[in-house]
Amino acid sequence: MSRLLIVLLVPLAACNGPESASVTPEYFLYQDQTHNKFSASIPPVLMVPDGAVVEVYTKEASDGQFFPESTAEDVLSLDFEPIHPLTGPVYVEDAEVGDVLAVTLHEIEIGAFGWTAITPGFGFLADEFTEPYLQTFSFEKGQTYVTGPGGARIKLEPFPGVMGVAPATDSLLSTIPPRRNGGNMDDPHLVAGTTVYFPVLVPGALFSIGDAHAAQGLGEVCGTAIEAPMRIVYEVNIIRDKPYLIEPQYETSEYYAVTGFGVTIDEAARKATRYMLDYLVAERAMSRPEAYVLSSLAADLHIAETVDVPHMLVTMHLPKYLFAP
Amino acid sequence: MSRLLIVLLVPLAACNGPESASVTPEYFLYQDQTHNKFSASIPPVLMVPDGAVVEVYTKEASDGQFFPESTAEDVLSLDFEPIHPLTGPVYVEDAEVGDVLAVTLHEIEIGAFGWTAITPGFGFLADEFTEPYLQTFSFEKGQTYVTGPGGARIKLEPFPGVMGVAPATDSLLSTIPPRRNGGNMDDPHLVAGTTVYFPVLVPGALFSIGDAHAAQGLGEVCGTAIEAPMRIVYEVNIIRDKPYLIEPQYETSEYYAVTGFGVTIDEAARKATRYMLDYLVAERAMSRPEAYVLSSLAADLHIAETVDVPHMLVTMHLPKYLFAP
Repeated sequence: MSRLLIVLLVPLAACNGPESASVTPEYFLYQDQTHNKFSASIPPVLMVPDGAVVEVYTKEASDGQFFPESTAEDVLSLDFEPIHPLTGPVYVEDAEVGDVLAVTLHEIEIGAFGWTAITPGFGFLADEFTEPYLQTFSFEKGQTYVTGPGGARIKLEPFPGVMGVAPATDSLLSTIPPRRNGGNMDDPHLVAGTTVYFPVLVPGALFSIGDAHAAQGLGEVCGTAIEAPMRIVYEVNIIRDKPYLIEPQYETSEYYAVTGFGVTIDEAARKATRYMLDYLVAERAMSRPEAYVLSSLAADLHIAETVDVPHMLVTMHLPKYLFAP
Repeated sequence: MSRLLIVLLVPLAACNGPESASVTPEYFLYQDQTHNKFSASIPPVLMVPDGAVVEVYTKEASDGQFFPESTAEDVLSLDFEPIHPLTGPVYVEDAEVGDVLAVTLHEIEIGAFGWTAITPGFGFLADEFTEPYLQTFSFEKGQTYVTGPGGARIKLEPFPGVMGVAPATDSLLSTIPPRRNGGNMDDPHLVAGTTVYFPVLVPGALFSIGDAHAAQGLGEVCGTAIEAPMRIVYEVNIIRDKPYLIEPQYETSEYYAVTGFGVTIDEAARKATRYMLDYLVAERAMSRPEAYVLSSLAADLHIAETVDVPHMLVTMHLPKYLFAP
C-alpha cells in the first residue's frame, strides 16, 4: 500500500471518535462467543472484510464469578482459570502476517454490574495486602460517575483491558501478561475515540476483545479496575505501510502513542522510548538523535499497568500539536 | 499545628496559581548567589520569615558553558563539575526538623537563551547514542512556542528542574540524583501554580532552586530539557501537620501528587504508590485497603525522569474532583 493511501486511512480512523460515532455495525458477536487464551489455534467465530464495523458484547473479567451480593469472602474462592473471557476471535479477510491491524473504538457502553477487588497474592504491593477486598457496583444507562472507596466519586471512563491479535503460536497462552500481540494491556488511555494498531502475526489477525474496565488509573496498582461487561463497537482496517510497528501503538486526535512491555518497568520504558524514536524516524523523516531529543523535550512516559505479571506496560505519548500546520 | 490550620493553609497555597499571581516579592536573590552541592554545611545567602515571597534569578544548568553559537563539538568539552548552579540556600525562620516546607511557584519567566544536548554516556539510552548533539535557542519576552528538532513547534511550559532543601548531612552531595530532600526531580508537572512540599531535614530548611527547563517531556529521556535561565517568584510556608510526608509531594487546584525516587523505576513506582496510600489514610480517613483500591481506580503513575542516575523518579497523581463537594 502506498504512503499516500496510509495518509488517507489513518486520519479517517483517528477521526471516528465518539464525537462522530455515527457508524452502523454490520457484524455482531455476543457474550457467549468467547475464549480465554491467546493462540493461533483457536478458530475464529466471525470472518469480516477490511473496514468492517463490529458490535460485540463482552463479559466481565471473572466470567460470572461475582454478583451484586458477593462479598470479600468470595474473593478467596475466585478461580483464575476462567479469567479474561474474550469475545472473538475475529478473522479479518486479507490481513496477512506483517500487516498492521488498526482497531478504532467507536462506542463503549458499560453494562449493569461491576466489581473491584484485592486478591491476596496479586497486585503491585502484593506482599503488603494479604486480606481479600471486594466492592460491587450497579450501573444505570448513561451513568457518568460512581461512588468508590472512601466515598470518592469516580468518573466512568470505560475501555477494554484486553485487546489483541493471535500470537504466532498454537500454544494456549495465558491472558494475564500483555505481549507483542497486545492482550492485557490495561491502559486506561484506550477509550472510545482511540485507534489501536496491532502487528498481524497470523493470517486473518484473529482479533479478540474483553476484560472491559469502567474506570482505572494508570498503573492499576491493586490488580483490578472496575471490572464490568460492556457493549463495544469497533472498526477494523488493514494497514500495510507501518513496518516499524513491533508492539501495539495507538492514537487519538490529540496524540500518537507507543507501548512497550517488559519484565521490569525500566525495560518496558526503554522499549517504549526506542519505539517512539522508530516512529519519529519513519514518519517524520528525523534523524535518530533528533528523535531522541524531541522525545526528551515533548513526549511523555506513563506507566499503564504494574500488575499483569510477568509483564509491565509503559507507554510514551507524543502530542500532535507539535506538527500541527 | 491543628488539623484546622492545615486545612486553611493548604488551599491558600494551592490557590495562588498563575491566575492569581499578583503577589509582590519582598526578598530577592540574583544569579551569582549560587552553590552546586546539596549539604547542610552550605551557609544560607538569605534569611526569610514564614510566608515570605522571594524573587530569584537562576542560571542554566551548565553554568555558562554554552552560548547561542555553541556547537555539538562543545558538548565534548562540557565540564560536569559546575553543573546545577542553584540559587540559595534560603533559611526559613522557625522551620524545624520534622516540619514540612511548602513552596508555591507563583511566576516562572524564561530568560533569553536556552540549549538542549545529547551528552555521550548520559541519558536513558546512553549505550545507543555515542555522538554529541546540541541545539541552542533564543527566546523573546512572552514567547510561548519554540521550534525544536525536526521542525516540531514545542510549547514552552517552564519549571525548575531542581528544587530542594538541605539534606541532614555536612557532606557535599552531587546535585545529579534526586533524593528525599527533593533536588533534581526534573518533573515537568512542577509549573507555576504548583505547591511543592519538602520534608525539613535541617533547621531553617535551606531551600535552593535552579536548573530551570523551558520545556520537557515526562522521562527527559535524552538527559536534557530545554535548559535556560529563569526568573522565578515563589512563596514559602511552614506546615507542621503532615507527618506522613517522607519524600516531596505537590499539588495544584486539579490534583494531589506524591513522588518516589529509586535505583529502578519499579522501586520508585512502589514507593510512590505507598506514599499515596499514606496520604489517603492520613487525609481522607480511609483504611489502607480502601486507599489501595481507590489508587488503582483513579490515581495515575507517571515517570518524571529516567536519567538522573542513580535515581529514577516516579509520581502518582490523584485528581481532586474525586472528593469535590
